[in-house]
Amino acid sequence: MPTLCKPSVHVPEYTITAEETMEFAAKVHAGKPQLPLALRLIQNTGVRKRHIVQPIEKTLRHPGFEERNRIYELESKKRCPPVIEEALANADLRAEDIDAIIYVSCTGFLMPSLTAWLINTMGFRYDTRQLPIAQLGCAAGGAAINRAHDFCAAHPDSNVLIVSCELCSLCYQPTDDDISALLSDGLFGDAVGAAVVRGNGGTGVSLERNAAYLIPNTEDWISYAVRDTGFHFQLDRRVPGTMEPLAPVLRDFTRSHGWDVGNLDFYIIHAGGPRILDDLAKFLNVDRKVFRHSWSTLADYGNIASAVVLEALRRQFEEETILPSAATGMIAGFGPGITAEMALGSWTVDTQGNPATAPASYLYSGGTI
Amino acid sequence: MPTLCKPSVHVPEYTITAEETMEFAAKVHAGKPQLPLALRLIQNTGVRKRHIVQPIEKTLRHPGFEERNRIYELESKKRCPPVIEEALANADLRAEDIDAIIYVSCTGFLMPSLTAWLINTMGFRYDTRQLPIAQLGCAAGGAAINRAHDFCAAHPDSNVLIVSCELCSLCYQPTDDDISALLSDGLFGDAVGAAVVRGNGGTGVSLERNAAYLIPNTEDWISYAVRDTGFHFQLDRRVPGTMEPLAPVLRDFTRSHGWDVGNLDFYIIHAGGPRILDDLAKFLNVDRKVFRHSWSTLADYGNIASAVVLEALRRQFEEETILPSAATGMIAGFGPGITAEMALGSWTVDTQGNPATAPASYLYSGGTI
Repeated sequence: MPTLCKPSVHVPEYTITAEETMEFAAKVHAGKPQLPLALRLIQNTGVRKRHIVQPIEKTLRHPGFEERNRIYELESKKRCPPVIEEALANADLRAEDIDAIIYVSCTGFLMPSLTAWLINTMGFRYDTRQLPIAQLGCAAGGAAINRAHDFCAAHPDSNVLIVSCELCSLCYQPTDDDISALLSDGLFGDAVGAAVVRGNGGTGVSLERNAAYLIPNTEDWISYAVRDTGFHFQLDRRVPGTMEPLAPVLRDFTRSHGWDVGNLDFYIIHAGGPRILDDLAKFLNVDRKVFRHSWSTLADYGNIASAVVLEALRRQFEEETILPSAATGMIAGFGPGITAEMALGSWTVDTQGNPATAPASYLYSGGTI
Repeated sequence: MPTLCKPSVHVPEYTITAEETMEFAAKVHAGKPQLPLALRLIQNTGVRKRHIVQPIEKTLRHPGFEERNRIYELESKKRCPPVIEEALANADLRAEDIDAIIYVSCTGFLMPSLTAWLINTMGFRYDTRQLPIAQLGCAAGGAAINRAHDFCAAHPDSNVLIVSCELCSLCYQPTDDDISALLSDGLFGDAVGAAVVRGNGGTGVSLERNAAYLIPNTEDWISYAVRDTGFHFQLDRRVPGTMEPLAPVLRDFTRSHGWDVGNLDFYIIHAGGPRILDDLAKFLNVDRKVFRHSWSTLADYGNIASAVVLEALRRQFEEETILPSAATGMIAGFGPGITAEMALGSWTVDTQGNPATAPASYLYSGGTI
């Protein structure tokens, strides 16, 4: 079975606290009738702090779509390589061992995708497959894991690198001031994540089954309006209620694998917002603490889009109580569509000298970057 | 082996001939020193006519990125369903038999991707996997075939629908007037294509092996500049020479499968331009006529980006001399990166009542559109 190894996730050096978010919102949108509700919603997100690629003063200015995308290119080229090096080291692999790169990012647009640059600069083989996905939003983290699983099944003994580069602050739109825009201004954060799915060996989640589901007729509930000023995030007020229809889907999916969704050993769930996590716990009839890695990711970093599942999984690896071999778990990402990308797997420990975290010598091997 | 069934490709109702292209270029760029060379290059493309989604007068105006993308959404929603219906009929399948949709398009950007709308309106199952790819450009047709192959290998008995929606005329940039922009203004055309890869049964190309290759350090040879006015296509003058390094890659790939690249029964090659096809024939040491379906696609429709390989394959199906069972062939798409996506397969005829073209009753079953 292909194994999803320990992710690496880095957040940028600039931060904005919940209090600062409220102050900025109150200042920028002073006097607007929707402000008090927006502030209450932001307070209720449970986000304590977020990380952003530029100082807040710069983040709040819109220099035009072209310049924004140029910043995206610069920042992604600066920030992805160290995260990838660490993910490779976590999987005890080198760049030349990778057969496919799945690059997911909905916060900037490059053609060719960053995959070409990564291959040229980081020592990946020139026959590495490139799979860039820009249009699955927050669900892309789950989708990347599932397509990596498929690739390893189709090409035995291969290894797939997943990269999630979400610089959400580069999609901030100062002139958008409806409730959903104000809420998202207080919810999303920046992060870069990476993880390797090993076709053989590795410690982590042995991927056993995957599936996807589209909630009927919700395609305009989470969307981008594409304008001359770039991507404008649009969130329907019904989105927080989507766990009610999704919970039975997750339950049936788990049952089809012979497992009980209410009784898994670990849950790696997209932290779209607090209502998503609370409702999912309720409708799956599980303790809300089983989503603790999603809750803490949300509090520390905000909603980091497709990187959430990688960060929540990284926290699972870091937990003091190590999961026993064969512990059962679920990974689920949710995003526009509204789409759920789901996976089931069991914890596996490579006893052949492939630890979850590689020795320091790998971490500092450097490569070509 | 998964089988790539007969594609359906439709082109829009508006046309522009090579002569009209020259007239418009001469008028719009009158007096510019680069004009004579550009006109010669356009004449040498071998493109006789192209099809576009709007009348030429409208095409030549730039109404802004937002409006362009709105037109992309409208046109793709209008034009994809009938092509998909026909591709399903060609594969003797219905929408509910499809397990994954791979949607490739680099000429407009929607999030969620059109896949969500297609599932909601055309009767696909809600658990259909969605794989939208926007950043592989012309190579995405080959990539879609290869990822569909992988999906069927990972999920036996499944069927994958490929959709390629390339409305290149919506990326026309009136203010771009360097040689590469003028050339591309005369080269690209609009088309919508679709094809099904059946996990079992089906008449067409039984997919046996796939691979990809990135030509080292060419990532800025074919690219989009992303600006407030949308995607600006940029083509380096060295691109036409890329078949010299790619031909040995195609040769080695074919040899690794035990076949001789100079001696296959059919070749479905991306028609990037005349030099691409001429050079590839030369460096593979094959008669240029083996690329006849690519040549005729180029002449009739121009470079229709990721849809070229689907249209060239459709023409292979339509050819009077039917390929014998087990005839060997190659499919290759080229695009930004510079990336080649390659596949090898053999002709297979389903004798269990699954013809290349389905009976008329399927063609007019209508579905929900």
